[in-house]
Amino acid sequence: MEYAAIYPVLIAFLFNLLLGPLVIPFLAKLKLGQYVRDDGPQSHLKKAGTPTMGGVIILGSLVLTSLFFIPSYPAIIPILLLTLGFGIIGFIDDYIKVVMKRSLGLKPYQKIIAQVLVTLVFGYYFLQYTNIGTEVFIPFTKGKTIDLGITFIPLLLFGMIGTVNSVNLTDGLDGLAASVTVLVATFFAVVSWGENSGLLPITSAAVGSLLGFLLFNAHPARVFMGDTGSLALGGFVAGVAFMLKMPLFLPIVGFIYVMESISVIIQVLYFKKTKKRFFKMAPIHHHFELSGWKETKVVAVFCILTAIFCLIGLLGLP
Amino acid sequence: MEYAAIYPVLIAFLFNLLLGPLVIPFLAKLKLGQYVRDDGPQSHLKKAGTPTMGGVIILGSLVLTSLFFIPSYPAIIPILLLTLGFGIIGFIDDYIKVVMKRSLGLKPYQKIIAQVLVTLVFGYYFLQYTNIGTEVFIPFTKGKTIDLGITFIPLLLFGMIGTVNSVNLTDGLDGLAASVTVLVATFFAVVSWGENSGLLPITSAAVGSLLGFLLFNAHPARVFMGDTGSLALGGFVAGVAFMLKMPLFLPIVGFIYVMESISVIIQVLYFKKTKKRFFKMAPIHHHFELSGWKETKVVAVFCILTAIFCLIGLLGLP
Repeated sequence: MEYAAIYPVLIAFLFNLLLGPLVIPFLAKLKLGQYVRDDGPQSHLKKAGTPTMGGVIILGSLVLTSLFFIPSYPAIIPILLLTLGFGIIGFIDDYIKVVMKRSLGLKPYQKIIAQVLVTLVFGYYFLQYTNIGTEVFIPFTKGKTIDLGITFIPLLLFGMIGTVNSVNLTDGLDGLAASVTVLVATFFAVVSWGENSGLLPITSAAVGSLLGFLLFNAHPARVFMGDTGSLALGGFVAGVAFMLKMPLFLPIVGFIYVMESISVIIQVLYFKKTKKRFFKMAPIHHHFELSGWKETKVVAVFCILTAIFCLIGLLGLP
Repeated sequence: MEYAAIYPVLIAFLFNLLLGPLVIPFLAKLKLGQYVRDDGPQSHLKKAGTPTMGGVIILGSLVLTSLFFIPSYPAIIPILLLTLGFGIIGFIDDYIKVVMKRSLGLKPYQKIIAQVLVTLVFGYYFLQYTNIGTEVFIPFTKGKTIDLGITFIPLLLFGMIGTVNSVNLTDGLDGLAASVTVLVATFFAVVSWGENSGLLPITSAAVGSLLGFLLFNAHPARVFMGDTGSLALGGFVAGVAFMLKMPLFLPIVGFIYVMESISVIIQVLYFKKTKKRFFKMAPIHHHFELSGWKETKVVAVFCILTAIFCLIGLLGLP
């Protein structure tokens, strides 16, 4: 089993090392005059010029690594397709923003419709062609499950689209989404190892791919993952959780994702009611920055919290 | 077993969260006018003012956490005493530098004699009161061992003192030694879990303690670990490796430590011979900084390499 646990990490890492120097200059040429979310702190304006859409490197390495393992591990195929599906939505969004310079990308309703479609295709496959079923584990009950029956479908839609957009919101500081997600992916790799679910190679490949990507994406970032990366990673994380019957673990190990989303919701609702800001800026990573934390400290603290919550997640397993 | 694997991480993490805010202001008062190695890059001079000796937080949390587990896991006692032994040498060194303002601390020969003594006490205990013996695993041989016989003693001295001083050299950028060592400690925790060596609680406690410390020590650091921390961590890492019969894995998982030491050796030898510098500055983390990498990028890359080498180490296990 070390075979399927460790080799995918190393192979995906190496693919990233190869793809990075090939792809980054091309991405840089593609844009010239970077889109930096104009809703971030002033200090981020210096990030103009950093190419985005680096998610294609993560996706490329994930796909290439998976090819080695698909013959023995067919269970990774739906996860791979799901990840690619969300990656493509992100890519189209990035492409419109970056190349066509329409700085807001896809319209929100277009994004949501595309996400619902990808999720439904995955859900159809999940219910029709796997025998995983609609039971999910309840954390901290020593393996008790609950059968969601027909309510599985709304949970799938909510869990998938919630995760995807939360990872998207998390992606706002150098290395933040990649390093938080490398820890979450490690959690799922450890679980996949124990569960013998057949998902081990792709969870491990995600770890290696993200470690490799972080070589280019850690502060100061030479490339951003863009929506290509963050939507793909969100789809990947949520897809793996559902395949392992563990969607209820997503709010634990994805504590940071949830916090980022909730901070935006609080900010918007509070502003509507009081016309004042609850956080100095949302998503909450910018709040900490504007409270005087350096970008790198926010990333470090969010990673450490994720590591701790992943361990708590392990305690909640059967 | 989750009990001994995960609770120590969480307990040690929490002890760190409690000790940090108590101890850091005290350390700040203790020094007033910080010692920053005058052999580092110019840009590090702004670090004057950051308190050091933060290793006492790591050690305090490690000791307090261990107290919970000593009754069921007596095997952690020698590791704990070894770690404390090196921590005390480091503390004396830091104290002379910081409080007595003798900026070079203990004289090199004093340090080495103290380190040899602590190592010999550990070695005597190891050979007299444990049945681990002088066999060590050879990496990548599916569990073959070699009996070192009497040559075990020089290997112990070299491995221990080499590791201790290499971790000490690694400790030159915000969060570097702590984050590299949290990964190495995770490696040994995973191995201890598998091996049922009785060392699991203290390896896990080291992980939690370092994660907690990183909350204060990640860039921009509010506290440095000082020699108190780096010597203790070196002793800890080497001690665990010897207790697991795995000293030959130290150069693999401790790749960064080795690289840091070798860079200094190369620099000195090359300079003696040619009167020119081989690296822009040694240890090698400063070389990368002076080559234009940001401090945080050096730390990120060294961590990623350590993660990869720890996985390679796992492949080399029986």
